[in-house]
Amino acid sequence: MSPFDRTALGPLTAELESLLGDRLSANAAIRARHGQDESYHAPHPPDLVAFPESTAEVAAILRACSHRRVPVIPFGIGSSLEGHIAAVYGGVCIDTSRMDRVLEVNDADMDVRVQPGITRKDLNAHLRDSGLFFPIDPGANASIGGMASTRASGTMAVRYGTMRDNVLALEVVLPDGDIVRTGTRARKSAAGYDLTRLFVGAEGTLGVITEVTLRLYGQPEAVSAAVCPFPSMADAVASVIQTIQLGVPVARIEFLDEVMLRGVNRYSKTSYAETPTLFYEFHGSEASVAEQAERAGEVARDHGAAGFQWAARPEDRSKLWTARDNTLYGALALRPGAKAFITDVCVPISRLAECVLRAKASIDASGFTAPIVGHVGDGNFHLLILVDPGDRDELSRAAQLNDTMVRHAQALGGTCTGEHGIGSGKIEFLRAEAGAAVDLMRRIKAAVDPLGIMNPGKIFQ
Amino acid sequence: MSPFDRTALGPLTAELESLLGDRLSANAAIRARHGQDESYHAPHPPDLVAFPESTAEVAAILRACSHRRVPVIPFGIGSSLEGHIAAVYGGVCIDTSRMDRVLEVNDADMDVRVQPGITRKDLNAHLRDSGLFFPIDPGANASIGGMASTRASGTMAVRYGTMRDNVLALEVVLPDGDIVRTGTRARKSAAGYDLTRLFVGAEGTLGVITEVTLRLYGQPEAVSAAVCPFPSMADAVASVIQTIQLGVPVARIEFLDEVMLRGVNRYSKTSYAETPTLFYEFHGSEASVAEQAERAGEVARDHGAAGFQWAARPEDRSKLWTARDNTLYGALALRPGAKAFITDVCVPISRLAECVLRAKASIDASGFTAPIVGHVGDGNFHLLILVDPGDRDELSRAAQLNDTMVRHAQALGGTCTGEHGIGSGKIEFLRAEAGAAVDLMRRIKAAVDPLGIMNPGKIFQ
Repeated sequence: MSPFDRTALGPLTAELESLLGDRLSANAAIRARHGQDESYHAPHPPDLVAFPESTAEVAAILRACSHRRVPVIPFGIGSSLEGHIAAVYGGVCIDTSRMDRVLEVNDADMDVRVQPGITRKDLNAHLRDSGLFFPIDPGANASIGGMASTRASGTMAVRYGTMRDNVLALEVVLPDGDIVRTGTRARKSAAGYDLTRLFVGAEGTLGVITEVTLRLYGQPEAVSAAVCPFPSMADAVASVIQTIQLGVPVARIEFLDEVMLRGVNRYSKTSYAETPTLFYEFHGSEASVAEQAERAGEVARDHGAAGFQWAARPEDRSKLWTARDNTLYGALALRPGAKAFITDVCVPISRLAECVLRAKASIDASGFTAPIVGHVGDGNFHLLILVDPGDRDELSRAAQLNDTMVRHAQALGGTCTGEHGIGSGKIEFLRAEAGAAVDLMRRIKAAVDPLGIMNPGKIFQ
Repeated sequence: MSPFDRTALGPLTAELESLLGDRLSANAAIRARHGQDESYHAPHPPDLVAFPESTAEVAAILRACSHRRVPVIPFGIGSSLEGHIAAVYGGVCIDTSRMDRVLEVNDADMDVRVQPGITRKDLNAHLRDSGLFFPIDPGANASIGGMASTRASGTMAVRYGTMRDNVLALEVVLPDGDIVRTGTRARKSAAGYDLTRLFVGAEGTLGVITEVTLRLYGQPEAVSAAVCPFPSMADAVASVIQTIQLGVPVARIEFLDEVMLRGVNRYSKTSYAETPTLFYEFHGSEASVAEQAERAGEVARDHGAAGFQWAARPEDRSKLWTARDNTLYGALALRPGAKAFITDVCVPISRLAECVLRAKASIDASGFTAPIVGHVGDGNFHLLILVDPGDRDELSRAAQLNDTMVRHAQALGGTCTGEHGIGSGKIEFLRAEAGAAVDLMRRIKAAVDPLGIMNPGKIFQ
């Protein structure tokens, strides 16, 4: 998309003001907050920020923007990492935070219909007494609409799948203001093209998600967690592979390297062995959890693990997972004042050890401190490259290291992003990975958004 | 699409003959076999049947057909049920049965790459000694390409998901002959639009699938099965709901009504109680299977079940599931000489009992014998309406009954097809269900297949 005709902004502002009143803002601080995600991509504030409260308002905004060919950037909570919400061509940010209601919980069907602005933690707080929960946990307290748009996953994907697997249906406003529903509450369907999966992961480039129907799960009767140090990363990965092959339905199986453990200990005042380590969580009945843990423990011992450190009591489990969840702060504790440049690749699990070894070599060559943490059950891992955000040379070298990571993963049959998405940051990597398939994506984009107003400059140029 | 210019057939035939030699056929019997699926939709033989042996040949066929604007109908084994493979506008059938190789089994990653023409049974025979298996079982020994194209599922979807969940990546030849790969072997990815899911369920209207990468699972250490009669259908359904809410990871949970049991007993010489019945299968470790069975049994007893009839020995299990798998023959045994007109709806499980009760009332009003069988863990069930295939009035009344079934399901928040697809048989139902979303599907169709040559007359007119 080329820059839009900025003379359209005046009349558009007037039109949107009459629709939204003070729920339209051109305030510089609000615009700035909506033009920067949690990454190091350059900020690009939108010209206007709209705070709709209904699908009808979203449709009216899109009709107005379509009419005047002004870009639209859907916004959840701004926790994405690849420049997804940057208004690189200016335009109107649609902040969905006021559309945060739970519309319908269906206990017997174990599903829920929500507005897109609700965060995953607020949703789970709402569900607490229902016996149900929504498992997808990307780390950040992201909005459900944002999680759907980026095809988010995280620690529990190995057991419960990603947003791809857990969105049953969507309501979407198309660029021209038309409203479509992409499915029913039926658990499965063979009725036409899978539009739900088309919008999940489309990063706001095809429309604005205004309702999400999610699968839920029964809160597990019993939960058990453990930390297990390994003599080497390869041993830890071999354990993961064998545990999964055995069919142990592990709920989480997270890898942290020795550098990450050093940061965890420093930040969380823990005293874990500073060696490659797996964090496990098991969900099920009391008996099933005990059996899962026993089997995973046997496999770990076969691969030289020194022993499981158990956390069966809720407070111990909470302490363990808080330590894991605070890996970002743990990483930052290794270089006070630094920020983390976070990479995200995913490879077939048989290639994971090789990919992590190559990553280690690249980190060593780079001179950076860059702890590694991975959702290893899925072959997905991250480097947290600690950079001085004011040092352009460091940022550029971190970008080079990221580049190397992606090319390693792709050479090993993997993907340039397991869960963060393409945004503006990985456009070239997607082209290298998907080739002609990117042209097909573009054709679909042009069919759904012929004016190119939806989140331009993301996924492809 | 309007009928193509039939003068193109002569030169096209010559061109394809030079490419395929005797692997191109205009033989009437071969054409007839490729124009009729296993349903009662009218036969429409293609003009030519091509038997390519490689992706390159498929691409050449598509280039030739594109150039001359001749329709192309991809064909697996012809076991679909909604007229998917009927050449309603004539054209070239691409029979993939000679593309039936297993290209790559990755044990550690638990995935496999196959050509589309291999059947699910041949794939599992190939995998037998690997300790892995592919669980999706739609009943028929369908081809993997066909199963992907119709988004097939069946008895094990409640545990293992559908083709939507188990296709990792595809190679597809687009209508113009371009070849795209829709993903990598990584277990998850956030890299751009989900093209894999776009082609899964597209029923050959967007391209020809030439390779499929599938998720596999470890062969369960232990398997146990049981049959359990219930006092009423509502009790059986309530049991299913509670069993799933409890998180019992049941591998199959199949409902058969009392009419179906009568047919099963007649055909399979069994002596099951002729009352609403659930067939269960449990997969896992010895201990886990025992616990799952115990829990499911408790739930069943709470809902008035008379008791589980166990089949732990492989031969007993095989007998039990053979009886279940032969429901079609069991149904036909209830009306010798009849054929079965099979319906397929899926509703939220909370509405299942109501939907089945309405179905029963409609069957009674119709005068047909129509046993019911359902993958009830997913809310999906079928009527096997026994019709005299030579009686047009019966066929028309069966179609009316099907119509009633679909409208009931849609009124209860369900879908017109859980697993059979739209084909040419459910185009109007899709329109009623998806509304404006069908227009969006058409726009995508036009973007991917601008000449409209791919399986015209399916999904939409």
